[in-house]
Parts: sequence; C-alpha cells; structure tokens
Amino acid sequence: MAGSAARPTIWRNARLATLRLDLGGLGEIESGAVAAVDGRIVHAGTEADLPTGLGDAQVIDCEGRWITPGLIDCHTHLVYAGNRANEFEMRLAGASYEEVAKAGGGIVSSVRGVRAASEDQLVKETLPRLDALLAEGVTTIEVKSGYGLDGESEAKSLRAARRLASERKVSVRTTFLGAHALPVEAGGDKDAYIEKVASEMLPAIARDGLADAVDGFCEGIAFSPEQIARVFDAAKALGLPVKLHADQLSDLDGAALAARYGALSADHLEHTSALGAEAMSRSGTVATILPGAFYFIRETKKPPIDLFRRFNVPMALATDSNPGTSPLTSLLLTMNMGATLFSMTVEECIAGVTRHAAQALGLQDEVGTLETDKWADLAIWDIERPAELVYRIGFNPLHARVWRGW
Amino acid sequence: MAGSAARPTIWRNARLATLRLDLGGLGEIESGAVAAVDGRIVHAGTEADLPTGLGDAQVIDCEGRWITPGLIDCHTHLVYAGNRANEFEMRLAGASYEEVAKAGGGIVSSVRGVRAASEDQLVKETLPRLDALLAEGVTTIEVKSGYGLDGESEAKSLRAARRLASERKVSVRTTFLGAHALPVEAGGDKDAYIEKVASEMLPAIARDGLADAVDGFCEGIAFSPEQIARVFDAAKALGLPVKLHADQLSDLDGAALAARYGALSADHLEHTSALGAEAMSRSGTVATILPGAFYFIRETKKPPIDLFRRFNVPMALATDSNPGTSPLTSLLLTMNMGATLFSMTVEECIAGVTRHAAQALGLQDEVGTLETDKWADLAIWDIERPAELVYRIGFNPLHARVWRGW
Ligand SMILES: [Zn+2]
Ligand SMILES: [Zn+2]
Repeated sequence: MAGSAARPTIWRNARLATLRLDLGGLGEIESGAVAAVDGRIVHAGTEADLPTGLGDAQVIDCEGRWITPGLIDCHTHLVYAGNRANEFEMRLAGASYEEVAKAGGGIVSSVRGVRAASEDQLVKETLPRLDALLAEGVTTIEVKSGYGLDGESEAKSLRAARRLASERKVSVRTTFLGAHALPVEAGGDKDAYIEKVASEMLPAIARDGLADAVDGFCEGIAFSPEQIARVFDAAKALGLPVKLHADQLSDLDGAALAARYGALSADHLEHTSALGAEAMSRSGTVATILPGAFYFIRETKKPPIDLFRRFNVPMALATDSNPGTSPLTSLLLTMNMGATLFSMTVEECIAGVTRHAAQALGLQDEVGTLETDKWADLAIWDIERPAELVYRIGFNPLHARVWRGW
Repeated sequence: MAGSAARPTIWRNARLATLRLDLGGLGEIESGAVAAVDGRIVHAGTEADLPTGLGDAQVIDCEGRWITPGLIDCHTHLVYAGNRANEFEMRLAGASYEEVAKAGGGIVSSVRGVRAASEDQLVKETLPRLDALLAEGVTTIEVKSGYGLDGESEAKSLRAARRLASERKVSVRTTFLGAHALPVEAGGDKDAYIEKVASEMLPAIARDGLADAVDGFCEGIAFSPEQIARVFDAAKALGLPVKLHADQLSDLDGAALAARYGALSADHLEHTSALGAEAMSRSGTVATILPGAFYFIRETKKPPIDLFRRFNVPMALATDSNPGTSPLTSLLLTMNMGATLFSMTVEECIAGVTRHAAQALGLQDEVGTLETDKWADLAIWDIERPAELVYRIGFNPLHARVWRGW
C-alpha cells in the first residue's frame, strides 16, 4: 500500500484524544477536527481553528465520536505457520513440558513450521491475525523474525512481514530476532550460533534492507548478556537500532544492557530492578509491557510499573502476539490487561499503544499522536469516553480506521 | 424471531464436535454432516449415514470446517444503561471505593441508569453487546434483571431482554434477580425488601410470564442464606426454577443452599467447600464458572475445579457480562480464561459453553449438543482443531452461525 489520499480530507465534529505531550493527559480537544493533505495531518485541533485553503476537501462528519491516533502494536511475532493449540491442550490435560517436547511441541515446532512454509504461505497464514488487529484500529505494527533461525528462513519471515504492508493499509516495521532461540542443528553451542547471527545472518539481512531493528532474547533459557552484546555490537556497526526481550523470567540486568546500547525499547521486564529502570530512563529506552504473555504463561511476578513511573520511563503496551506464550491478537484487550493485571491507568494504557509505542519503534516523529506533519493514521470510536477503550473486555467499538489519510 | 427454516438443510463435508455424552470427549465425528428440518436436527453423524428423503434439501458444503453446537452464554446481566468506565478509570487512578461511591459510582449508578431508561433505550444499548456475543457463535443467552430493584423497573428489564429475541436470531432465557442488591430507598432494611421481592415483585413477574428462572445474590454485601431461602420458597410456590450467585467472596454455604432447592445452577463458587460441591452433585446442580469477574476484580481465590471434577458436578462457563465486575462480551475469551486462570481442560471449556451451559438453563433437551430432535443451532468454525477455540486470545474464527436451522 504505497498510496495515500491526495485529496484533502477533514474529519469534523469530533472529540480528539491527541496524545500530545504538551497538552497533558490524553491531550483531549472538544469540538475538534483533523485535516489531512497527502496523507499527512495539516490540522489536529479545534474545528474553529481549521485552516482555510482546504476548499475542495472531502468532509466527514464524525457525529461527536472520539478520534485517537491509529493504534500501534510495537511488539509482535505475527509471522508464523501453524499454531500450538495442540500443546496448549496437552498441557491443560496434565502433560509435562518434556512430554510436550517429545510430541514435537515447543518453539521447535514453530521453527519447523516456518522453515517448511513458503513466503506466500506465511503471508496467507498471518493475514487473519493481522486483520484481527486492524479491525481494532491498528495502523502500525512491528513484526519480528525468530522462528527461522537460519539465514534464509529469517529473511523469508522478514520478507513475508514486509509484504503485509502491500496487502493491507498498514505500516509494518520489521525486527530481526535471530537471537531468539538456539536451533536444534547448533548442537547446543550458543556461542557459535551467536557468532553466525552476528557475522553472517545479520549482515545479510541488513544488506537486503529487511530489518528496521535488531532484537534478542536475553534469558537463561536463551542467550546471555555477553552473547546479546555480540549481536548488538554487530547491529551498531551496521547502523541498526536495537531492542531486547529483557528480564522476563529472571533478572539478568537485561534492562541495563539494553540501555547501554541506547535500545529503542526493552520488553517484558517483569524482573527489572531499580537500577535497570534508572538506566533505561537515562538512555531514553521505552519499557514495553507485555501482559498477554504474563497472563498466558501464568506468571506471577509483575513488571515494576511503579519504578518506570518513578524514573519517568515511557511505557508501551503490546500484544507480543506469538504462538507459544501469547496467542493474542487484540490490542484493546492488551490495554485492559495492562490495567487489570498491572494497575496501569487509563492514560498509561492509551499512551502505551499510541505515543509510547511509536517511540518504541523510533517512529515518534511520524505517528503516535495527532499532530501536524505526522501521518494521518486515525482510529474513530463509538464511545462516550476514552476510558471505555480500556474498560471493556472483548468488545470492539471501532467506527472507522484511517491509514495515511484514507 | 419466531421463524425457522422450513426447507430442509444439510451441512455436509464437516467435522463435528457433537458434545454427545455417550461418545465421550467432544463427541467428535469425522466426515460428518448435520441435517435440519423445521429448525430441528434430524441427523448429526457421518455423512454416509445421512437419511434419505431429504431430496429438496439445501446443501451447504462446509469444506472440512468444524461444527459445534451454537454457544450458550448461561449467565449474563446484559441489559443495562450506560457503563461504568468512569469508575474503572477513577479506581485505576487510585480512588477508594468510598470516593467512587461519592461520585455516584457502584451498582447504584446502574440502578439509576436502568430506572431512567425506557425499554426501547435498554434494548438499543444492549444490542451492540449482544451482537459481540453472536459474532462468536452464541445462539442462546441468559439475561438477568437486577438493576431495576423495583417491580416496574425489573419488569422493564426483563421485557427488554425478551425483546432481544425479536431483534436477532437468538434464544433468550430471562432470570428475575430482584434479590441482587438492596435499593437505596429500602433504607437498609434487607428483610423488608426481600419480603417485597418474594411477595410482590416475583408474583407479578411470574404472572406476566417474564421470567424463566429466579436468581439471588447470597453474600455478606448482599443477602443472607435465610433471605435467599425466602425468595426461593416463593419461586418454588410459583413453579419457577432457581439459580444462585453463591460463595463468590466468602463461603456462606451458598452451594448447599442452591442444592437444597434443586437449583439449575450455582454460580461463581470461588469459596465453595467440598460439602457444597457434594450437595450440588446430588441435586444435579451445574457449577457455573465465571472467570471474567474473577479476572476483573482481581480475585485470587480460584473456584475448586478439582472438587467439581471429583464429585462429577458439570461445569458451565459464562461471561457474567455486567458493567461493574465483568464488562466482558466474548465467550471465546471466557473459555481461554477458564483454561488459563483455572486450568480447565479444552474439553471442559467447550462443554462449559455448550452441553453444560444448556443444562444450567434447564434446556438440555433443546440445545447444547448436536443430536437428533434438538434445535439446529450451529457454530461453524475456520479451525483445524477444536482446541483453537480455547487457545487463541482475542481472535474470532467463526465462519457461520445457524440458529434454528437458518
Ligand atoms: Zn516477544
Ligand atoms: Zn452475575
């Protein structure tokens, strides 16, 4: 979807939650209007202040509805083949992780699926998941690789992710996550695999322009801080920003590691310490909170929301949509989980899927708020107050979705 | 919707999860077909066994999709006016229950809303919530009163609930819940209010044929077992079956009370004891599990699923959809919560929204399984295995919904 509406459009008679930082709160504007030209916002303010010179504009009466920035899902593993309902069922029936693994379950089953699938097949299987997100007003989505774990399969995943943007009206940011798990053929040698990720896979991915960022999984069951640092050094040398799956199951000082590399975001963070939060604050690293995974794996340790508040670390919220630990395709429900499970406020939840999610992708100048010169990505809602977006569970009040002005 | 399809219809090339008890498990049938005449099932089995004599039948090729019984949401408070997003937001921002109450929040705000609303308004506000449920394959829904708390407002709520069935293709069962909370004008006199419920409100509701069952809220913050018994005695005298909100926040032996009256179901049950579960088993009372409320109010005490298993108490799962403690309108998500929060198996979750939910409404001879002579209420799914209905979060794989054969 390279296009955007050339004809100016005005959405009037609306209430705006602009998320503009300078307005405070949700940046609410009553009697508001948004105007777009060439897909970019030229006005997001009161209707009275609409600029002149938009004479031939298409005018849409929003009948008092609320407009927010289009939602942004800044952490997903959306591209995969098959699903893992089978092992979910086995585990509920009492099977151990060993029994599940013996039956071919676990991440290896997703790796097998992605390697066996064609790029077309990956796109086809991913689209229904993407459509579920878009139906709730998502206009930008991040997609990670990490189920290929070899050069060609990782590239195939990222190409499939990029192709989503030609199939739907949505912006896609891709992230290379070769350092997700150790493939079976590595024979347990994590150092050797990481060396391959850093010196072979990543440079090829970068050369082909397939990734906007580089991610890793820093955890006892995945890779050590030193191994992640090796990947991050390579990313830095290639000019790619980094992100990190950090401190989800234990505190390996992942947050501080991410901060040291000026990461766009550190994600999960259930076990992050005050020092980690403080380091993130200094480096401007976003804390991406992923309540879907917390819920699905029945985690009990909550991320230290109070620390992120204390150190002014911006918090994003994302689905972490993936087949193993968060088969979640609702960003509205993710907001409710942020509030219900982690006591995030309504304002924090909404900023978490707009302004702060944009920042977690390095897109803060492009999307995430309703402000002049940003893309006209809008979600228009049948609600009486923004809190309803967070309060309701399993209900979609979206009236219309606008991507780049159309 | 009094109608039903007169022309016979055959859904062929399907996989069936019949939920037939005699088949065990989900009662799965490969190479299956369902045939309906006058809205009733005349065949649900293998395609090879389709009866002859359906020559002019409309034939629908299901292309290998799964068919389950239409889903049944057997516990909702779906009819209300306004919502309580405001107090949700206040509480997340740190307000105490007292501050919320001072601002007009709590159940009194729902009572105020229902009393002020016209019957038309109640129907209009409820339909979007109903539509969210139907979009996921629900074909039967129970709706309780309990936000009117005076004779006319309770009757108005039940009339509004009944009208839903003329607005959509869905079966509606209504439950009178006058004993839900004490209205402000009762001045704190619970006994006097209960006397009014039992001797005035309920007889009028019964006379007008507005309720299929009678429910109560047995809890310290609501009504005592003795007060509930007064209401149940009145229901019994009028020939109406009973249900009970039991043991949600404390163990008042609500389950045993419900069992003593041969209740169709006892609901919530977080604090139910082994004696309570055993009594339910003897009386054939269904345990209706409501994970949405557990999740939303951040309850930590789980219902004793193991006890219900041990005593062979059938478990239903329902949304408890209501504005105060479970603003949930997804029965698929409810299943996931049953599995994730309470470790219910896939089979238990699916039976919980079909066969056992039908039993919780006394409709076990009409709906809840794919069996000859039951209503042809079907949900047809784009899935590879039934476990996907439980595994996914915030994703709707419904392909088509059939109510009474059309
Ligand atoms: Zn992730
Ligand atoms: Zn209830």
